[in-house]
Amino acid sequence: MMEKIDQLIHAKWMITCEDENQILENHALAIKDKKIIDILPSDKAKTMYQATNTQEYNTHVITPGLINSHTHIAMNIFRGLADDLELMDWLNNHIWPAEGKWVSDELVYDASLLAMAEMIRSGTTCFNDMYFFLGATAKAAELAGMRAHIGMTVIDVPTAWAKTPDEYFAKGLEFYHQYKNHELITPTLAPHSTYTVSLDNLRKVNELSNEYGLKINIHLQEAPSEVEQSLAQYQKRPLQRLHDIGMVSPNLIAIHMTQINEDDMDILEATRPHLVHCPESNMKLVSGACPVENLHRHGINVALGTDGAASNNDLDMFGEMRTAAFLGKMTAHDPKAVCALHTLKMATLAGAKALGIDHLTGSLSVGKCADFIAINLEEIETQPLYHVVSQLVYATPRSQVTDVWVAGKQLLKNRELLTLDKKEIIKKAQVWGKKIKN
Amino acid sequence: MMEKIDQLIHAKWMITCEDENQILENHALAIKDKKIIDILPSDKAKTMYQATNTQEYNTHVITPGLINSHTHIAMNIFRGLADDLELMDWLNNHIWPAEGKWVSDELVYDASLLAMAEMIRSGTTCFNDMYFFLGATAKAAELAGMRAHIGMTVIDVPTAWAKTPDEYFAKGLEFYHQYKNHELITPTLAPHSTYTVSLDNLRKVNELSNEYGLKINIHLQEAPSEVEQSLAQYQKRPLQRLHDIGMVSPNLIAIHMTQINEDDMDILEATRPHLVHCPESNMKLVSGACPVENLHRHGINVALGTDGAASNNDLDMFGEMRTAAFLGKMTAHDPKAVCALHTLKMATLAGAKALGIDHLTGSLSVGKCADFIAINLEEIETQPLYHVVSQLVYATPRSQVTDVWVAGKQLLKNRELLTLDKKEIIKKAQVWGKKIKN
Repeated sequence: MMEKIDQLIHAKWMITCEDENQILENHALAIKDKKIIDILPSDKAKTMYQATNTQEYNTHVITPGLINSHTHIAMNIFRGLADDLELMDWLNNHIWPAEGKWVSDELVYDASLLAMAEMIRSGTTCFNDMYFFLGATAKAAELAGMRAHIGMTVIDVPTAWAKTPDEYFAKGLEFYHQYKNHELITPTLAPHSTYTVSLDNLRKVNELSNEYGLKINIHLQEAPSEVEQSLAQYQKRPLQRLHDIGMVSPNLIAIHMTQINEDDMDILEATRPHLVHCPESNMKLVSGACPVENLHRHGINVALGTDGAASNNDLDMFGEMRTAAFLGKMTAHDPKAVCALHTLKMATLAGAKALGIDHLTGSLSVGKCADFIAINLEEIETQPLYHVVSQLVYATPRSQVTDVWVAGKQLLKNRELLTLDKKEIIKKAQVWGKKIKN
Repeated sequence: MMEKIDQLIHAKWMITCEDENQILENHALAIKDKKIIDILPSDKAKTMYQATNTQEYNTHVITPGLINSHTHIAMNIFRGLADDLELMDWLNNHIWPAEGKWVSDELVYDASLLAMAEMIRSGTTCFNDMYFFLGATAKAAELAGMRAHIGMTVIDVPTAWAKTPDEYFAKGLEFYHQYKNHELITPTLAPHSTYTVSLDNLRKVNELSNEYGLKINIHLQEAPSEVEQSLAQYQKRPLQRLHDIGMVSPNLIAIHMTQINEDDMDILEATRPHLVHCPESNMKLVSGACPVENLHRHGINVALGTDGAASNNDLDMFGEMRTAAFLGKMTAHDPKAVCALHTLKMATLAGAKALGIDHLTGSLSVGKCADFIAINLEEIETQPLYHVVSQLVYATPRSQVTDVWVAGKQLLKNRELLTLDKKEIIKKAQVWGKKIKN
């Protein structure tokens, strides 16, 4: 008697991103109640399971959905507004004035949909965001069907979203209580940085993290100037300051971390926070480079993120993987460093670990949610094929992502968005663009 | 009375890559006898020219065709065969054995078509190649309709193509005499490097360059080890050795040049050779980084190339531009360095200058050949649009190239290859892949 299931997904290749059975050929995913209930050879699957829906990806590789571990997705609406500038010129004279004038619930909603369309079209199923008007991003994620971690931003500077730290906390907590039990949306804490949030407010963030069991995202040791200023002002590096108030733990997601000395490494090894590497943003803004291979050797988990599209300028995790591998080799002075599989894991399982959801997603594994993507490799750009992981990381353009699934629901089918209206999103982006440009 | 012409090409935007009139809106290219005979506002063009064929690119930007200034295109067939390795392990234990066993007239022809399909699909109209079985590459370029500079390889090592330096010279010259008057194919000289070609043979190359007026391509100061070995063996840096035999001149195309000290810069300023930067290959193999911004300030022309797909792993000049800008900023410690327009010019006009064909191509200019590409910007990934050059370099995926023209002939139309058979090329690549893998 065959077992009735929802989906049977056959693929020429699968990369599980688990340590064992990394690359499978002619296998199938059996999916029931949004979860992977079996991974087995296609031949056998056809005799064991009767699926409501069967898909055959005969020239494709299936991987876990990509996890973009650091974003400011609504900034897609400002992409290309100001490039080739010093960070402070860019922020003070371009981005912050534009944000101050334009950021609103409506802008964040429309811009989030634009970003989600880009993410889904390039194989990203989950993102870890920091911005304003959290409810608008959450509403967009619900429509898109994406897995979203949304940060309760705290910053000691007034914005269109909140005027005082108290207001940031209050609005953040309101969001937390609204979404704390949501299937796909997870609130997190997101103090902007140690140079824009007071120690008192950072302590308050830490208390909330302990009280509600929330992850804390923070931009940390992004560039040499940040460390120098901290040393000048507090005679301590930013990581040390956070460690002193007990914030550095596996609950901390430290973003960027291009500056790591031996003392920092000692703290990281003792406390095990998760790091997020954003290689393209770091290169474009000349911030430095996170020493990924060295961290890997020390057993520190490093995930991958694009940062906002205003400083990247895309949300393309395929491009980000390629750059992460190239920059990782360069930083380690070793062409064997940050190999293709290591890079793919940064974009999948390491992201899930950082976000604290590796029991749910990040690899193809029985019991996890059916978050996966199919990439067609029978194209000019990816033939012939010797090593599927290598081809995926070093040669495959994001446009070869054909199908995307989150929790057993299909979001992209043969490159068509199923939950979002592409034409409408472009039209709205153009309307915003015209307003902002003037 | 309206003038009869062949093509009238209207576009929403044009980036000319000339110093003046860089960005034009709602303009048209008037094309007759393969050349651009006018560039003018679309409204005016419609009253002046009667074209056999009119195209409207209403949501597109038109740029000069991209020039890939350093390739080993037939190596596409070995893409992904061996990654994440030390250069010498990669060469000695993987690439050279595979080449020794498989490279032939037939392989180079099939592999060249595969590479050309990839190049055309990503907006490259001209490439500057170094490999073996030159006739096969030329035959493929004739079929594809691409502009091809093909190097007469000289190396003091036997290969499947030639056993002795004399045989390399003889086969090269045979190729030269066959193609010297070809419209789109230009023979060049291509001694592999100063560490694989004797000084006597380099002198012979130089004589041929003077006799026939040929460009000389050479891999030069690619990595620190090359310079160290030269200093140990000859007490001179490789550039100095070439300068001593009179080879460093505007006829020289020096490829890679990641190692440049003050003495080198003095030679470069005095002799004005052209350089080719291959940022992704240099990062992946941990060779170093060409100091593009510094060279630019010294007035040295630097073009852009992908290198072979076995060490990149693609022939995507859009990705290469992005990496060139990012790495250029990082190398100069300046986020303003290697701006978007500078980068686009590296991939177009600077390439044409390096190859000695800037009177024919490399910019949209009256009198030049009609080598241009159209890129659709009305996509999720490129909306809204603030600055067209920035968007093109920092955000646009190669898949948004819709149409490609070389010398007034269309090679790609709405992403369909017009001169090449995509299915047949993929099929042949798969057959080669199976043979090579076993």
